[in-house]
Amino acid sequence: MTVSASPFSSAPSLLDHIRPQALALPESGIVEVMNYGRRREGLIPLWAGEGDLPTPSFISEAATRSLAAGETFYTWQRGIPELRAAIARYMSSVYGVPEDLERYHVTGSGMQAIQIALALTLSAGEEILIPSPSWPNAAAAAEVIGARPVAVPLSFDPARGFWLDLDRLESAVTPRTRCIFINSPANPTGFVAPAETLRGVLDIARRHGLWIIADEIYGRFYFEEGGLAPSFHEVMDPEDRILFVQTFSKNWAMTGWRLGWIEAHPSLGQVLENLIQYSTSGVAAFMQRAGVTALERGDSFVTHQIERARRGRDIVAAGLSTSNRVRFATPPGAFYMFFAIEGESDTRQLALRLVDEAGIGLAPGTAFGPGGEAYLRMCFARGEAQITEATERLVSWLKK
Amino acid sequence: MTVSASPFSSAPSLLDHIRPQALALPESGIVEVMNYGRRREGLIPLWAGEGDLPTPSFISEAATRSLAAGETFYTWQRGIPELRAAIARYMSSVYGVPEDLERYHVTGSGMQAIQIALALTLSAGEEILIPSPSWPNAAAAAEVIGARPVAVPLSFDPARGFWLDLDRLESAVTPRTRCIFINSPANPTGFVAPAETLRGVLDIARRHGLWIIADEIYGRFYFEEGGLAPSFHEVMDPEDRILFVQTFSKNWAMTGWRLGWIEAHPSLGQVLENLIQYSTSGVAAFMQRAGVTALERGDSFVTHQIERARRGRDIVAAGLSTSNRVRFATPPGAFYMFFAIEGESDTRQLALRLVDEAGIGLAPGTAFGPGGEAYLRMCFARGEAQITEATERLVSWLKK
Repeated sequence: MTVSASPFSSAPSLLDHIRPQALALPESGIVEVMNYGRRREGLIPLWAGEGDLPTPSFISEAATRSLAAGETFYTWQRGIPELRAAIARYMSSVYGVPEDLERYHVTGSGMQAIQIALALTLSAGEEILIPSPSWPNAAAAAEVIGARPVAVPLSFDPARGFWLDLDRLESAVTPRTRCIFINSPANPTGFVAPAETLRGVLDIARRHGLWIIADEIYGRFYFEEGGLAPSFHEVMDPEDRILFVQTFSKNWAMTGWRLGWIEAHPSLGQVLENLIQYSTSGVAAFMQRAGVTALERGDSFVTHQIERARRGRDIVAAGLSTSNRVRFATPPGAFYMFFAIEGESDTRQLALRLVDEAGIGLAPGTAFGPGGEAYLRMCFARGEAQITEATERLVSWLKK
Repeated sequence: MTVSASPFSSAPSLLDHIRPQALALPESGIVEVMNYGRRREGLIPLWAGEGDLPTPSFISEAATRSLAAGETFYTWQRGIPELRAAIARYMSSVYGVPEDLERYHVTGSGMQAIQIALALTLSAGEEILIPSPSWPNAAAAAEVIGARPVAVPLSFDPARGFWLDLDRLESAVTPRTRCIFINSPANPTGFVAPAETLRGVLDIARRHGLWIIADEIYGRFYFEEGGLAPSFHEVMDPEDRILFVQTFSKNWAMTGWRLGWIEAHPSLGQVLENLIQYSTSGVAAFMQRAGVTALERGDSFVTHQIERARRGRDIVAAGLSTSNRVRFATPPGAFYMFFAIEGESDTRQLALRLVDEAGIGLAPGTAFGPGGEAYLRMCFARGEAQITEATERLVSWLKK
């Protein structure tokens, strides 16, 4: 729902005087359903992109210790050196990125990493290509700055699932295009770009002088061989124009913390520091201590979460396949089932109805841009019992 | 120092490909000195806008309890209702604002509140008036979005200190002007706008259809009668276009937390929620619990801090007045002494020299825009012993 000026009275409204781009911003279609059902008793909430496990206590306790020690003052805008070094070690061990803390800047969420990546590369009136359906926030953040997100439809076939047609991507490039936003594994579709697709995107970016903003936050939620989704790290040269946005939210169950990082060529360090300074001026040191602990001691928890998500996925897929009204492909990555129900085209209304009629909270596909309208998104990063119950509720609702 | 493209090699640099507005951003002149002296032994750091007291433990412990209880999930984008209600009660008790939580949205720092206020009101190519010298971040945040900050020089005379000439302000309005940023009590000058000046600014804003962004974060650090600086709350009508940006940083010694709020007419609520969603997507619930405790139980701590600042101010003023090389007026508000030293015009170099030669860390006036170049800023929100020692170091350095 877009806010409209003067909806309640004929008097001149303050809304008439704000920036048209701010007024035109969409309300998050996910949050709308969450606000509708947030306090509904017995509801199983699978609408948000988060699991049901709180942050492990060994991580939270690192923040607690830091707080008790009085680490409550301003700190490094780029992030405390200990966290930047821990990120560098982590990225080296997972992706083989040469260990250099100057590549990493701590941000107050992955969302802020995206905002900063956009501020670095995209001006009002310019365009960013975003394969769609997609998590809506990157597009909306581009709209905030007066730029134009251009949706490039993903292709779908039942055997292959969602896939990116490179010709379609390249044909969307115009003289105003500055960036390509690639989320893989993808929310909400589960699309995972194979290495050859990443290479193809990189070729397009090089050919047209574009930046790539790479959102690989679900990289380890990959259920195929190897357990790590293909990454731009595998195909890029050091001087390629790629910015990686990252978050602690998913791997370490830290969604509520708002802690992430941006990875970029070290030559961009001072500009990134400035952009952090002039947006939130850094991240609480005590939060960052928790980040260090997550990276250094959190790996078995991450593995546990991934295994849970895989089981969740298999339960939901098995349940949905018992209905002939549902269209979906089992996603190879991320932790969402993105499915369409025959005969249901208004998924915004449908998501509200499912709160009332089935006791489950799903995100409506209308929240995810062109091509998503017919779908619902269900987060399966949850315990077996709850996912089983939610699947049963959905399947019996489907049979009504 | 502005980052320049390709400073280290003749090869094409990634810096050549980022937005010119991002490349042109100034490095914080304060952070530059802090980074220079941060680990210098025995140095008394008075460069940042923060005191020497850590957050009181009763506030930190509220966050700790929330963390231990597992409040680590996504939460309300606008802020938890408990905190918004606590802010509404606080603002009602301090400023007499009618109690309505819909006026308040929690942000990840006062800086983010400014960023959001700008996103609401100011587009690329438009202008914002900022009395100068001023804390540099509001101007820089406007530059990030491609807007133009227009410095309106404050006037100075030794008896009256800094003051705002309303004719000068109004003559800076052009057809592209959208906002006036008013920080009172002001960092770094100590300027406090009397109620009639606020009324005058409001008249100008009404006449030209401008927004006011009111930064009254130092409102309680006011050393004249009544103990509360004049506020736009006293002179405005409900429908005036005023956005207030606020922070927990100063009153409750929570600089490192990055926790603040924005106050606006309730009709702007959905737009503000959207702007939060698309920048950092909210603030950690466990941080917000600490905010509730600060507002509900922090008042005697705030009073203690203000008293300390007053004593600090008086010590520095007494010390500086023993030197005939120093020009300053004792500030009625905020917690900075802003002073010029005869014969020293390059204060960026001077601040670096004072780290080495006097063992004190001051912020160079060059960091605060037009009119600030000849000054140094010293934060006096510190304990008596330290402020006395710092003042003695400065005074003996002046005598060398």
